[in-house]
Amino acid sequence: MRIGIDVMGGDFAPGAALEGISRGIKHLNAGEKLVLLGDQSVITPYLKDNGLQSGQVEVVHTEQVIEMGESPTKAIAKKPDSSIAVGFKLLKEEKIDVFIGAGNTGAMFVGAFYSIKAIPGIMRPAITSIVPKEDGGYGIFLDVGANADCKPEVLDQFGLLGSIYAKYVYKIPEPKVALLNIGSEKEKGNLLTQSAYQIMEKNPTINFIGNIEGYDMFNNKADVIVCDGFTGNIVLKFGETMYQMMKKRGYTDEYFEKFDYEHYGGTPILGVNAPVIIGHGVSTSYAFESMIKLGRSIHRSGLINHFKSAFDLKKAE
Amino acid sequence: MRIGIDVMGGDFAPGAALEGISRGIKHLNAGEKLVLLGDQSVITPYLKDNGLQSGQVEVVHTEQVIEMGESPTKAIAKKPDSSIAVGFKLLKEEKIDVFIGAGNTGAMFVGAFYSIKAIPGIMRPAITSIVPKEDGGYGIFLDVGANADCKPEVLDQFGLLGSIYAKYVYKIPEPKVALLNIGSEKEKGNLLTQSAYQIMEKNPTINFIGNIEGYDMFNNKADVIVCDGFTGNIVLKFGETMYQMMKKRGYTDEYFEKFDYEHYGGTPILGVNAPVIIGHGVSTSYAFESMIKLGRSIHRSGLINHFKSAFDLKKAE
Repeated sequence: MRIGIDVMGGDFAPGAALEGISRGIKHLNAGEKLVLLGDQSVITPYLKDNGLQSGQVEVVHTEQVIEMGESPTKAIAKKPDSSIAVGFKLLKEEKIDVFIGAGNTGAMFVGAFYSIKAIPGIMRPAITSIVPKEDGGYGIFLDVGANADCKPEVLDQFGLLGSIYAKYVYKIPEPKVALLNIGSEKEKGNLLTQSAYQIMEKNPTINFIGNIEGYDMFNNKADVIVCDGFTGNIVLKFGETMYQMMKKRGYTDEYFEKFDYEHYGGTPILGVNAPVIIGHGVSTSYAFESMIKLGRSIHRSGLINHFKSAFDLKKAE
Repeated sequence: MRIGIDVMGGDFAPGAALEGISRGIKHLNAGEKLVLLGDQSVITPYLKDNGLQSGQVEVVHTEQVIEMGESPTKAIAKKPDSSIAVGFKLLKEEKIDVFIGAGNTGAMFVGAFYSIKAIPGIMRPAITSIVPKEDGGYGIFLDVGANADCKPEVLDQFGLLGSIYAKYVYKIPEPKVALLNIGSEKEKGNLLTQSAYQIMEKNPTINFIGNIEGYDMFNNKADVIVCDGFTGNIVLKFGETMYQMMKKRGYTDEYFEKFDYEHYGGTPILGVNAPVIIGHGVSTSYAFESMIKLGRSIHRSGLINHFKSAFDLKKAE
């Protein structure tokens, strides 16, 4: 397994990425490798100084950097030798198996959609957040921002994407899928959720349990919580802010500490043809370490093949 | 001023309502009065036992009760002598000036829409939540559930409804209005917010400051935060749940205690022809006390007339 990492991406790059690599490498087995994309004049001395030069680390020098504020579509085209563009090129050519980056989020999306592309049958890839449950488990919340407007059929697909992710990566055997809504009864909701409910309740490939409300995010009613990317993004950022306000006051414990994104590092783009993990702009070295672990788990789980067979089967129906 | 209260509404009725009345009456000036709607065989002995019989309390006996699970439209029609139906009749006839109830929320809405009706020019009345700001102030968040699907023009109106409410009841001089969105730039968002932005930025009757994100709910960027009722309802319930989890663990302080709905008691239905306040089903006596104070403030502020003149002016444009 070869995990590619954009060393130039993120607000604290390249330092946070490099330190994250030095932490993350400890989790690799023999034969597993990190491929570092970025400026070799920065990377190589760091590796040397920290005793990290080994067969498990390879440097791919890139000349350009896509900045945080650049237009994603233009940047990918204009900077073919950027760490992001080269990363997706290697991923497409199967020279790396996973690509991780905390740089320009839009460019990471555009790179994924135009290089490795969506898996046939998947209408709209989605991004997720991990929801810590009060009883100790975890839930998968999606979409948290890739798709501001969704059709009902897309929400239905999110249910299956999330189920497969929950099952193979988070080892939740029969994930319960719910639609995030403003009432628990079937007829509740906006036009989107009312229609999505009718599709999801007839979908035999998911274990649909109906609607849940904002109150139910942290209980064990659902393992996979589905919503459009507009709602999901607002809820995610709102929750992060409440957690930050608590943390500032010292009001955290073992449970609330699970709200810290750094434990998960970033989100995969679920539904594209290879594992891609997008990090927070403010990713720390610990977040990079978590992303390396997540990328490794996703690759080892065979997630992409599980997606392919599930959606190919659905296409063939 | 005569404030009508549905004594039979809410999960802890009539006890919580009656105790709330005994707490709330202390806030009234001479000439201000509470009109209690409900079963006099319960209300009168309570008033007698608690020394509350005075010219400031009047009992209007009603025979029927609309239960929490009943269909709102049917219940109002089938139970003309229920505390809710009689309350709206009195409000329409101007025999009371404010109506407060914590019973069947749907029936409270239906009652308001069919009796006193929306103010001419207001497309969709809205309900609100009070957002405690970290710097000590408060924000008005709307709609939190009355309108699951909204047109862009409706969001624009919410901006004005919220501004007038913020200005006259919460004494915020020039309320800053923002659209809750998934990015701060103008072009960000879903189709709804993208269109609403274009209308709101041209609306001279509001102080529109643009988009804010989920991160900005508790800072001082905006005084009035506008969204559709689907998003608002989910965010509200999500926030309440985080607060409840914190409270259970003893993680609260002066700031976080402001998340307790009981301090505000309930939400007015902004945009109907008289002050109507809907309480939480679980309203306690303190919540009833807060609703009495809120109803009194709203009436004294002349809010309904401010709405009428603002929207009449807009109609005449």
